[in-house]
Amino acid sequence: MGALHAGHVALLQAARHQDDIVVASIFVNPLQFDRQQDLDSYPRSVEADLKVCDDCGVDFVFAPEEAELYPAPQLTFVTSPVLSATLCGQFRPGHFRGVATVVLKLFNVVQPDRAYFGEKDAQQLAIVRRMVQDLNVPLTVVPVATVREPDGLAISSRNKLLTPEQRDIAPVLSRALREVVGLIGNGERSVPLLREQALATFAASPQARVEYFEIVDPEVLASVESINGPVLIAAALWLGLVRLIDNMSWPGPA
Amino acid sequence: MGALHAGHVALLQAARHQDDIVVASIFVNPLQFDRQQDLDSYPRSVEADLKVCDDCGVDFVFAPEEAELYPAPQLTFVTSPVLSATLCGQFRPGHFRGVATVVLKLFNVVQPDRAYFGEKDAQQLAIVRRMVQDLNVPLTVVPVATVREPDGLAISSRNKLLTPEQRDIAPVLSRALREVVGLIGNGERSVPLLREQALATFAASPQARVEYFEIVDPEVLASVESINGPVLIAAALWLGLVRLIDNMSWPGPA
Repeated sequence: MGALHAGHVALLQAARHQDDIVVASIFVNPLQFDRQQDLDSYPRSVEADLKVCDDCGVDFVFAPEEAELYPAPQLTFVTSPVLSATLCGQFRPGHFRGVATVVLKLFNVVQPDRAYFGEKDAQQLAIVRRMVQDLNVPLTVVPVATVREPDGLAISSRNKLLTPEQRDIAPVLSRALREVVGLIGNGERSVPLLREQALATFAASPQARVEYFEIVDPEVLASVESINGPVLIAAALWLGLVRLIDNMSWPGPA
Repeated sequence: MGALHAGHVALLQAARHQDDIVVASIFVNPLQFDRQQDLDSYPRSVEADLKVCDDCGVDFVFAPEEAELYPAPQLTFVTSPVLSATLCGQFRPGHFRGVATVVLKLFNVVQPDRAYFGEKDAQQLAIVRRMVQDLNVPLTVVPVATVREPDGLAISSRNKLLTPEQRDIAPVLSRALREVVGLIGNGERSVPLLREQALATFAASPQARVEYFEIVDPEVLASVESINGPVLIAAALWLGLVRLIDNMSWPGPA
C-alpha cells in the first residue's frame, strides 16, 4: 500500500536476494478499508516510494490507478470466513475479504513465482498462505521477519502518528509479547495464566487500551487453551487514536 | 462433473476446433452440493466419459480424487453475493460459492488460455465470466450454445430421470422461453405481461411446478421490469422430483 518503510525494504531486499526479477506493487486498496475516512487519510508518498524501490534494485513497480484494478463494480470476492473471524478480523469487518481479493488480483496480474509478505501482519499472512493453498495459486509465499526499532517497537507507518509520550509507551506491546514467549520457553503451558501476565504488563501503561490479546494456532488462528505445539501470540493496542498490532511466534525461527 | 452428454461434447468440439491442446476436467465437486444425498446420487461414469473425451480428441483429462483438490479443509472461497442472490442461487444456498471456488482451483491447476462453458447453465456462466474479470484471471471464457433435443428440450443428464410422461411434458420449458423471445421480438416490452404469458404456458401442464421465471440483465442478473436492452430469460421447473433449468437470450446470437 505504499508509504514504504524499513519493513517494506526488508521485503524488497529478500526478493532482490532470491529472485531474478523483482516487482513491487503499490496500491492503496479501497476494498480493504472499513471506513471511508481511513481510506482518505491513508498516507501516500509515491515519489518517495519509487525512490525506495529504485534504491532496493526493484525492476518493476506496478502502481495502478483505482480504475485500472476496479474498472467495474467488484462483484466477486475471496473470503476466508474462519480465518477472518478472529484477531483483527473481529474488529475490521470486510477488511480481510478486501485484502485477499486484491492480493489475488495482483497475483493474477503480476504472476510472480514468489510473493513476499511481512510477518508483522500475521493474520494477513495466514490468510494469503491459506488462499494460495486452497485455491491452488501457482506461487510460493515467502514470509519476512518483522523489522523493529531498537526498543522493540515493530516498524509501522502508523508509528509516526504517535505523540512523543505515546511513542515512549508503545514498546509495551512487543515487551508483553516477548515476556509471554519467554514464559512459554520456561515451560508455562496455561494460556489463561499467560494472558493474565500480558494484561498485567499492559495495565502498567494505563494510556494503552488493549483491543485483543490472543494465543492461537498459527495456521487456522483458532484460540488455544494450553500450549501443545507452535502458537502465534498476537495483540492489538490503542494509544489514543492510533492502533498498533504486533505478534510473535513460539517457538521462534530455528 | 462428468456424466458427459451431447452438451459436453459441444464444449469439447469447440475447444478441439480452436485450441492446440484440449484438457477436460472431470470432477464431481462436493463443495457445490447443498445436500449430501444429491452428491451421493450424482451420476458417475468415468469409463464412458474417458471414451467420449477420446472420441473428441481431448489431449488430457484431469480427473482428480477429492483428496487431491481438497487435501485440507477448504477455508478460502470465491463468492459472488450479488450474482448468486437470484435465479437458481436463491434456491441453492452455497452452490455457486462452491462452483466459483472449484472453477478457480481448476483454472489455477490447468492454467488454460481459454475455458469453455455451456450457456445452459447461464448463472454459472455469468458468475465465472465475472469472476475472471473481477479477479483478473488470465484467460478467456468461451460460451457454447445449449444443445437441444429435436423437441427443444435442453440436453441434461437429469433428462434420463424423467418418466416417459414427464419427458413428454418437459419441452414446455423451452417452448415458454421461446414464446417470450418471440413476443419481445414482436415489440412487447412489459416484463409483467411476458411473465404472465410464460406462466400461462406452464399452467397448461399442471404436472409442472415452476420454481422461478425471471427476465434479467445478462451481466449482473438483476431483474428488469421492461425490456430496454439485452436480457436473459431463465426458468426452473420441477417435474416430480426432477428439476430442469433452461434459458434464452434476447436478442439471440447475431
